[in-house]
Amino acid sequence: MRFTSGTSSDGVREQLFTLDGVPGVLWTPDAAAGPRPLVLLGHGGGQHKKAPDVLARARRFVTECGFAAVAVDVPGHGDRPTVEEYDRIATENQARVAAGEALAPLIAGFQAMVARQTVPEWRAVLDAVQQLPYVGAGPVGYWGVSLGCGLGVPFVAAEPRVRAAVLGLGGAAASAGDAARITVPVEFLLQWDDERVPREQCLALYDALASAEKTLHANPGRHADVPAFELDSTVRFLARHLG
Amino acid sequence: MRFTSGTSSDGVREQLFTLDGVPGVLWTPDAAAGPRPLVLLGHGGGQHKKAPDVLARARRFVTECGFAAVAVDVPGHGDRPTVEEYDRIATENQARVAAGEALAPLIAGFQAMVARQTVPEWRAVLDAVQQLPYVGAGPVGYWGVSLGCGLGVPFVAAEPRVRAAVLGLGGAAASAGDAARITVPVEFLLQWDDERVPREQCLALYDALASAEKTLHANPGRHADVPAFELDSTVRFLARHLG
Repeated sequence: MRFTSGTSSDGVREQLFTLDGVPGVLWTPDAAAGPRPLVLLGHGGGQHKKAPDVLARARRFVTECGFAAVAVDVPGHGDRPTVEEYDRIATENQARVAAGEALAPLIAGFQAMVARQTVPEWRAVLDAVQQLPYVGAGPVGYWGVSLGCGLGVPFVAAEPRVRAAVLGLGGAAASAGDAARITVPVEFLLQWDDERVPREQCLALYDALASAEKTLHANPGRHADVPAFELDSTVRFLARHLG
Repeated sequence: MRFTSGTSSDGVREQLFTLDGVPGVLWTPDAAAGPRPLVLLGHGGGQHKKAPDVLARARRFVTECGFAAVAVDVPGHGDRPTVEEYDRIATENQARVAAGEALAPLIAGFQAMVARQTVPEWRAVLDAVQQLPYVGAGPVGYWGVSLGCGLGVPFVAAEPRVRAAVLGLGGAAASAGDAARITVPVEFLLQWDDERVPREQCLALYDALASAEKTLHANPGRHADVPAFELDSTVRFLARHLG
């Protein structure tokens, strides 16, 4: 793990790093010392580790909860090079949708393929970040919707350090099997008029989670219209389970 | 409106009253003066105005928010006399369920009939309570699930003083028409394994609400198993919209 820059503003220290070629960013409270809960933030499709939404979430976990937060670029996103195979499949999928195929199963299949790469990458990030004395081996939370859900479900299923997860805006098509291995508390977001993920598939993914505590929060609106008060709720949710 | 008793404990003043033969209870902060938001609490089937759940909710709105809270007995419940017609229909419905009929439409039809009586009763309670100087004509919220939803949906639809409502554990069978006239923010509770209200009918009632802001909170478990953290959420929800 190699740190490439460090800045600080309004009580939040931000450090860019690379780990085996994966670019990431770590946020901690200024002058943090000792172990603390850590939230891994998965970004959405077409976004990156410092997209405004990701940054806003990270800062809240640091300033309101005293947690650490970390995000990395998904392959083909942010500061990572394009991946020829992924680009080819994405182009093929666009053509298949134009020819009348349903979008959701194609997205799900694509995300399952990318997850085979990101799950070990993200686990390695936890290994590295938790060795820092001002992060340490505290409980881990995960926050990711849309692409962050498609990649997050197999990650949360595989990673016992994760004690609670925010997921949603994703369907069961590819990840119901992984969902059935998730037993930690989950807060799951659904947009009632989601144009990308059919409502039934999103409900089916919630249904497939094996967690004894899992809460579905549904709101009217399209895929990107999650209300601001739901962010407040997810911060409280992870604070309650990790704090 | 006639007050029949008044007590106080832990900062909460509790006054029993009757209004045109309807027994009720009003909770306000000790030494309250001036207008404040008011929450009307609808109780569940077989419960009454001072059932433990109702009491716990009322005290939280008073102590945490400084609101007033009011609850009355539904006909045939608590301190009200039995209603021969309702008893006869309930007995008939039990026989029809035993003979194989679906429970949910029978419940819905029964609640719609009772609502024709309770909507004007509850509106009269608002009229009376809001004339008290320590309650006043502030914004009104409604909190009711199960029977409190079946009776609450027509009430919230009819009463423009209600600015936000907690509803749920109820289905669309009887009240979809009323739900389509509700435009205030709603937090709607659903139990994923509800043995009394089919999931699809509960989702359909949420869907029927015309509110621009409406949030569905679903959790695993049976009708009576709403998690404690959802009460916290509903207190925050009404505080946000009325406070």
